[in-house]
Amino acid sequence: MKSDVEIAQSACMKPVAQVAAELGIAEEELELYGKYKGKVSLNIWERIRHHPDGKLVLVTAINPTPAGEGKTTTTVGLGDSLRRLGHKVMIALREPSLGPCFGVKGGAAGGGYAQIVPMEDINLHFTGDLHAITTAHNLLAAIIDNHIHHGNELEIDPRRITWRRVMDLNERALRQIVLGLGGKANGVPRESGFDITVASEMMAILCLASDLEDMKSRIARIIVAYTFDNRPVTVADLKVTGALTLLFKDAIKPNLVQTLENTPAFVHGGPFANIAHGCNSIMASKYALKLADILVTEAGFGADLGAEKFLDIKCRFAGFRPDAVVIVATVRALKMHGGVPKNELAGENPAALAKGMANLQKHIENIQKFGLPAVVAINAFPTDTKAELSFVREQCEAMNAAVALSEVWAKGGAGGEELAGKVLAAVNKPNQFRFLYEATQPIKEKIATIAREIYGADAVNYTPAAKKTIQELTGLGFDKTPVCMAKTQYSLSDDMSKIGRPTGFAITVREVRVAAGAGFLVAITGDIMTMPGLPKHPAAERMDIDKNGRIVGLF
Amino acid sequence: MKSDVEIAQSACMKPVAQVAAELGIAEEELELYGKYKGKVSLNIWERIRHHPDGKLVLVTAINPTPAGEGKTTTTVGLGDSLRRLGHKVMIALREPSLGPCFGVKGGAAGGGYAQIVPMEDINLHFTGDLHAITTAHNLLAAIIDNHIHHGNELEIDPRRITWRRVMDLNERALRQIVLGLGGKANGVPRESGFDITVASEMMAILCLASDLEDMKSRIARIIVAYTFDNRPVTVADLKVTGALTLLFKDAIKPNLVQTLENTPAFVHGGPFANIAHGCNSIMASKYALKLADILVTEAGFGADLGAEKFLDIKCRFAGFRPDAVVIVATVRALKMHGGVPKNELAGENPAALAKGMANLQKHIENIQKFGLPAVVAINAFPTDTKAELSFVREQCEAMNAAVALSEVWAKGGAGGEELAGKVLAAVNKPNQFRFLYEATQPIKEKIATIAREIYGADAVNYTPAAKKTIQELTGLGFDKTPVCMAKTQYSLSDDMSKIGRPTGFAITVREVRVAAGAGFLVAITGDIMTMPGLPKHPAAERMDIDKNGRIVGLF
Repeated sequence: MKSDVEIAQSACMKPVAQVAAELGIAEEELELYGKYKGKVSLNIWERIRHHPDGKLVLVTAINPTPAGEGKTTTTVGLGDSLRRLGHKVMIALREPSLGPCFGVKGGAAGGGYAQIVPMEDINLHFTGDLHAITTAHNLLAAIIDNHIHHGNELEIDPRRITWRRVMDLNERALRQIVLGLGGKANGVPRESGFDITVASEMMAILCLASDLEDMKSRIARIIVAYTFDNRPVTVADLKVTGALTLLFKDAIKPNLVQTLENTPAFVHGGPFANIAHGCNSIMASKYALKLADILVTEAGFGADLGAEKFLDIKCRFAGFRPDAVVIVATVRALKMHGGVPKNELAGENPAALAKGMANLQKHIENIQKFGLPAVVAINAFPTDTKAELSFVREQCEAMNAAVALSEVWAKGGAGGEELAGKVLAAVNKPNQFRFLYEATQPIKEKIATIAREIYGADAVNYTPAAKKTIQELTGLGFDKTPVCMAKTQYSLSDDMSKIGRPTGFAITVREVRVAAGAGFLVAITGDIMTMPGLPKHPAAERMDIDKNGRIVGLF
Repeated sequence: MKSDVEIAQSACMKPVAQVAAELGIAEEELELYGKYKGKVSLNIWERIRHHPDGKLVLVTAINPTPAGEGKTTTTVGLGDSLRRLGHKVMIALREPSLGPCFGVKGGAAGGGYAQIVPMEDINLHFTGDLHAITTAHNLLAAIIDNHIHHGNELEIDPRRITWRRVMDLNERALRQIVLGLGGKANGVPRESGFDITVASEMMAILCLASDLEDMKSRIARIIVAYTFDNRPVTVADLKVTGALTLLFKDAIKPNLVQTLENTPAFVHGGPFANIAHGCNSIMASKYALKLADILVTEAGFGADLGAEKFLDIKCRFAGFRPDAVVIVATVRALKMHGGVPKNELAGENPAALAKGMANLQKHIENIQKFGLPAVVAINAFPTDTKAELSFVREQCEAMNAAVALSEVWAKGGAGGEELAGKVLAAVNKPNQFRFLYEATQPIKEKIATIAREIYGADAVNYTPAAKKTIQELTGLGFDKTPVCMAKTQYSLSDDMSKIGRPTGFAITVREVRVAAGAGFLVAITGDIMTMPGLPKHPAAERMDIDKNGRIVGLF
């Protein structure tokens, strides 16, 4: 069996200029990055903004398990299938982070015969957007410490600097550091730390900005610290709004690539869905809606995280109205949610499947709470039995959710025609899309609504620090924004060991951060960390490149 | 008067594909990064390796002063002038670092009418090479701490990890940190710190590698730490040679751009010359020597740093034989070396000029010690008087150095024809190029030779730590490599306040580091730091971008 990178390396890619031309993107609207990657110039907007919007399909999933669900694979395959059926389709995905790439995953561009290419480029530095974010984020951090070192005119309290540093790697050793050591020449000693780049507010801003001007205003509003007398200090106060914005002059432009079957795909922005808002950029999505008749996009991890934030944050800011939501599940993963360990997944286990099915059922319920039609995609595995597949189908249909078997991993777009048909049926019906909460509700009410309605929690506990921050932020008027929940992806609760559909639990909000530039609050729950670590044997150990530049070890 | 960025924005650039075609680079040998930047594919080498080498001209300078010397400007203008005279010319420069760009300089792509373009791109992220270096360097750092966290099979002594982290910013607060704080989940607490990316051994390796295979072998040899029983630990021991090398799959390819007058320029690799070896990549230079009849390249800061390392390190590794060395000076800078403060440079001051002239004379002597012809380029300023210019001319000619007035800043290539003529005369005579020392000499002898012959020092002192390291490295067999001196750029000595031509001084070697992958030792002298800081009002404060993407504040 061929590995993902081998399949990708034997792809028949079209020059991206041709992919763009087929979408109606003019030659001068595309900036090439090599032959197979391009950035779409921002001035395209004036030309296409009056086009009607295409249909918007979100692909999400059950809570992830070590068995793998194949959300990106399904997104890509569904796009290819819809294109085979004659529709003008675009796909919009997030840019992979190098952290998980070198950690566990080894790549994040789909799998099997449903991949976006050139996968080595997409998985490595791509067009440099994540590096631009890292650089802008860290330049701002340097400017803050430099300001204090040179006299601290703004009276920043060094103990209340909320702006940390970032790195696009899994770096547990940098989670908590003391910097500024070694004497006067090295600044003022203080505690701080690094988050992963995908958790940066700069990343959220890139993904939520509607254009360069909006991005600049958002950057100006970022709160980085508080003064000794508790006034927020912003980027504008530090006079580096322009310098930070110009670092994004290229990163803000959506990246165009293609699938193995030449379906056009924007891959732009990459916040994680556990510690950030988890969707690709609004700009890529809004361009795609104008360029295509159907846009298939994904949000990270399970529907409790990615889909909730896609709907409550991204759609709210962008004014998008989704037409259907695909929930990806596998029989194997459902059995794991029913308590079966990974090495015992091969055999049938009806009891475990029925128990694990509850996780999928909760996500179907949740999507329906948003007034949207749910289409379940069962990502097929060779070990799935007829009985298992029928059981899942029946359970979904009983909940009024469409359901289809997806074989896109093995067959590409040809394996997704049933799914495409169900999706087309769903998007062609009107829906009653609504947000889960109003942005103007008090902070604790918004958090409680998400915890109760989406996670199924009985209560929300707050640490004293979180309570104090909520009070302060409310006093400062930062309470009228959506809330971006940071929570483990493995469970509907904030405890990763509670698989399936847990009940009778409370969520603990440990810390609240304000992202005034992004325009939301971040509620950090349980023991979720904003900087991952590497496993004992990182995926990096399996990677290699030969003298001709051929790469192995990316999946 | 137009600013540099305004001049650059009104340039008549040719599509880089056309620039490449004029050099004989085939379409499939060029990867476009937008319309005006490209990377040359490595498989070009098989086709051009049998071409005869062009002439090699190095541009260096006196010790820099706050008055500015214009070394890059002169390099670019000289290239343009030689091309006007009908020669097939290439220029090879280093990639700017974002540290000084946001710190003091605001840009590093030449100035006035002698610039490389697109200057905004070159000064900002360019094609991402520096980000690739930062990422690979920091991935390795993460792998080391992760190895210790997961049981430390290699028995690495956490107190003897020599591999620090890097950032392409001026970040004094990160010079010295304690990491791994916050409990068991965050690894093992220890002291460490960040250097600027341009000082990374990864940068040196990128610049010294002859091809991808050589780069991989060099990466494998990097020493990152020592075990509890003093054995060196390498990248190969950590099993991430392949993963680190594949991060350079694109960065290793030379970047092609052009001057304002469409002269082709490689801009590739960017080590500083004070804390690193200070020259662009061997690959860019060797390709350029095959593609052009004359290659004009530069080395960083003064000739005591950049030129010495260009000749003793880069030429030694690459087998290059330079044909001439241009030393850039200005009347204003020479007066500063004679003790005149920056705000009093307008008037004539023959005594100060005569005194400051000694700095230039020492650099002429030094270049002649390498058996090479020195051509002095006086970079013209409107305030220069006839008497001052005549004095400098006479003094140079008395030392058998050719001399020419260069007006390329104001006039582009048209202002460099006298200089081009003198350079052509020099390169057409045979020379007796020799290295200053043999790589096989003992470490202290090599350092003493450089300090005595190039800096004019009477003695070299070593701290006990440096002495101990020299002993250990000699014991391990790492003594047979060139030495890369890390020294202040402002003085021939290791004390930045000793301007002009100091005498009666000693150099202090504070620390010695082995760069086993790069293939040299680094001797750190005086109080030079491998991570710069930002000034009170960084250049970043003056930068801006408007809604159409137009940038101001880059120089």
